[in-house]
Amino acid sequence: MSKPFMFEKPIGMRDTLPNLYEAKQKIRQGMTEEVKLWGYQPIETPTLEYYETVGVASAILDQQLFKLLDQRGNTLVLRPDMTAPIARLAASSLKDVSTPLRLAYDANVFRAQHDEGGRPAEFEQIGVELIGDGSSSADGEVIALMIATLKKAGLTHFKIAIGHVGYVNALLLEIVGNEQRADTLRRFLYEKNYVGYRQHVKSLPLSSIDKTRLLQLLNLRGDFTKLAEAKELVSTAEGSTAVQELEKLLAVLDCYGITDFVKLDLNLVMHMSYYTGPVFEGYSDNLGTPIASGGRYDELLQKFNRPAPATGFGIRLDLLIKALGIKGETRPITCIIYSNERRKDAIELAKEKRQEGLAVILQDLSGVKDVDVFSEGYEDIIYCIGKNGKGDN
Amino acid sequence: MSKPFMFEKPIGMRDTLPNLYEAKQKIRQGMTEEVKLWGYQPIETPTLEYYETVGVASAILDQQLFKLLDQRGNTLVLRPDMTAPIARLAASSLKDVSTPLRLAYDANVFRAQHDEGGRPAEFEQIGVELIGDGSSSADGEVIALMIATLKKAGLTHFKIAIGHVGYVNALLLEIVGNEQRADTLRRFLYEKNYVGYRQHVKSLPLSSIDKTRLLQLLNLRGDFTKLAEAKELVSTAEGSTAVQELEKLLAVLDCYGITDFVKLDLNLVMHMSYYTGPVFEGYSDNLGTPIASGGRYDELLQKFNRPAPATGFGIRLDLLIKALGIKGETRPITCIIYSNERRKDAIELAKEKRQEGLAVILQDLSGVKDVDVFSEGYEDIIYCIGKNGKGDN
Repeated sequence: MSKPFMFEKPIGMRDTLPNLYEAKQKIRQGMTEEVKLWGYQPIETPTLEYYETVGVASAILDQQLFKLLDQRGNTLVLRPDMTAPIARLAASSLKDVSTPLRLAYDANVFRAQHDEGGRPAEFEQIGVELIGDGSSSADGEVIALMIATLKKAGLTHFKIAIGHVGYVNALLLEIVGNEQRADTLRRFLYEKNYVGYRQHVKSLPLSSIDKTRLLQLLNLRGDFTKLAEAKELVSTAEGSTAVQELEKLLAVLDCYGITDFVKLDLNLVMHMSYYTGPVFEGYSDNLGTPIASGGRYDELLQKFNRPAPATGFGIRLDLLIKALGIKGETRPITCIIYSNERRKDAIELAKEKRQEGLAVILQDLSGVKDVDVFSEGYEDIIYCIGKNGKGDN
Repeated sequence: MSKPFMFEKPIGMRDTLPNLYEAKQKIRQGMTEEVKLWGYQPIETPTLEYYETVGVASAILDQQLFKLLDQRGNTLVLRPDMTAPIARLAASSLKDVSTPLRLAYDANVFRAQHDEGGRPAEFEQIGVELIGDGSSSADGEVIALMIATLKKAGLTHFKIAIGHVGYVNALLLEIVGNEQRADTLRRFLYEKNYVGYRQHVKSLPLSSIDKTRLLQLLNLRGDFTKLAEAKELVSTAEGSTAVQELEKLLAVLDCYGITDFVKLDLNLVMHMSYYTGPVFEGYSDNLGTPIASGGRYDELLQKFNRPAPATGFGIRLDLLIKALGIKGETRPITCIIYSNERRKDAIELAKEKRQEGLAVILQDLSGVKDVDVFSEGYEDIIYCIGKNGKGDN
């Protein structure tokens, strides 16, 4: 432990400079407007929540939570996601509003980082939650809205991988027989470590038929026609139901005309432990990590005493900006440099130009150390100096 | 210490429901646009900063800071204001940009509350910092911009009280002789406890002339003509300089045509210890607490190794909303309720209406528990149910 330099920021913390801010703001506005057009209503929740309530429900790994103690000895967390806070809200302030509830957010979430690996410890998510609708139409709606929102941001080349947590769980449990073994395999899938998965399967005390079935799971990625194969692979009711749900979901997506944007991925296992049904991740062609994700979580709301099926998505604005290749943009600014006795003229001129929608800086010459250096920063400079200029003096 | 209920939020933490969110968003957009028109460039800084850097520089009372430890044993704080983080930014990422620098923010700041007294522990501030310009024009500009921004938000009946930290400090020190005594008096002024101030003055071992002078300070509020009185009351160079600065500032405000919005308040003592010169607070006629404040802080930047004069303001959005008497508003939403076989028609219809700018919810009938209760929430409902409706089926 050494004292930080005055300039330092905590690990994973970032500043956003003006040019990137403007670009982000433009994209953010388009996205939140799209979400509103679909009837989702924006809400805000506090940055800090109780660990015992939202912290535990959020299912983010404990070591990724920023924790602190309040004066009463309760542990607080910086919200690691928005799904759990919105579940709390739906079950308290909004408990009398009838479902389905459609809520939207644009918020920063927090994940503690333990090394300077480039991963942000605070990032902005734009997303929605659709609470109280267990139909495939609801699953399809949030995927269709996620696609519309990404398109609105300007993203063109991307795909949504769709899986089903219930399918994977049913298949693994059916073959390996207990949750602990299933968990080990799920972990390989979550890490997308397919080599490790294969090796582990070989080491299991199972029949060669069962081993083959476990390996076949790895093939269930790509075109949705593979659903037929998926259906054959399971023999439990849970597994078959999951496949049927995906078939229904595909029919809904077809109605939206967006099947070109989706693909099947039955190896998809999400890190959020609350997912129960169809899950999905959005990938831009030029980025390895998912820029968006979501899925069905039918058991979270009951933790807050308002049992209800639910689904939703979150888009990471930082990764989306990266995928869009945006470097930033700045609005042109006109600079009026004036001397003391022309101040009033300068103020009038600035007022007129601002009314036309131009951004105008008013700068007293006496407040500038080096006018040559300062003026370099502006393309359009107007001097109101001395008695000879235009104006009513 | 008892375990919080699932619905509970930490002390002073708030949710923002959709109707208030929309109202806030509208006001926020107008205000941030105004600030941009004046050439201030928006930036973002992280929620967490090091205690040793920004935390200490921010000068918020230690007991009001939310503190936590990172993995390396450094203390972090949730930013209590935006002035210190922007000073850090100006001195690091923006160190090569020539001054004057004009930066803007729209950010949540945090102040720990120790009881449920209704004070928020997290609130949104919209503000600016003008760094590197020590002239009265800079002081006048930020006051003029604060007034323009409040007007843009729809506020009409408000006043800006303007004081000078340097004047108060000079006068008190001149009369009472040491910083400790001056501090006691300053504390009464900060708490606006003028009765306590009077009583304390009476108890001091001073001449009756000096006591009268200390009491005269309490009269220096109201019209700017009282500046003449203020001038007579001090005899040090520091005190006279402060009065001259206020005279110059008044001339600048006159050029902006905003003297109707300002009044003198030489009893104004700010809680932020970094202020050095003219300071101000904005009051709405219908609210006891200031909704906006700011002032000159010429010594903060040198803590970050980029010495520069600076001034700025921050407007509290929660108090502004209160002053505006806004209860919230909701955008009308059309709801299309459809059955399975009419899904495609419904999606088409929703798409058309959204393109016209209408907010439209698409709701599968099978996803609603009680359609009568659900439909009560919408004025405009369209049913796409069964084979008999319009459409191409």
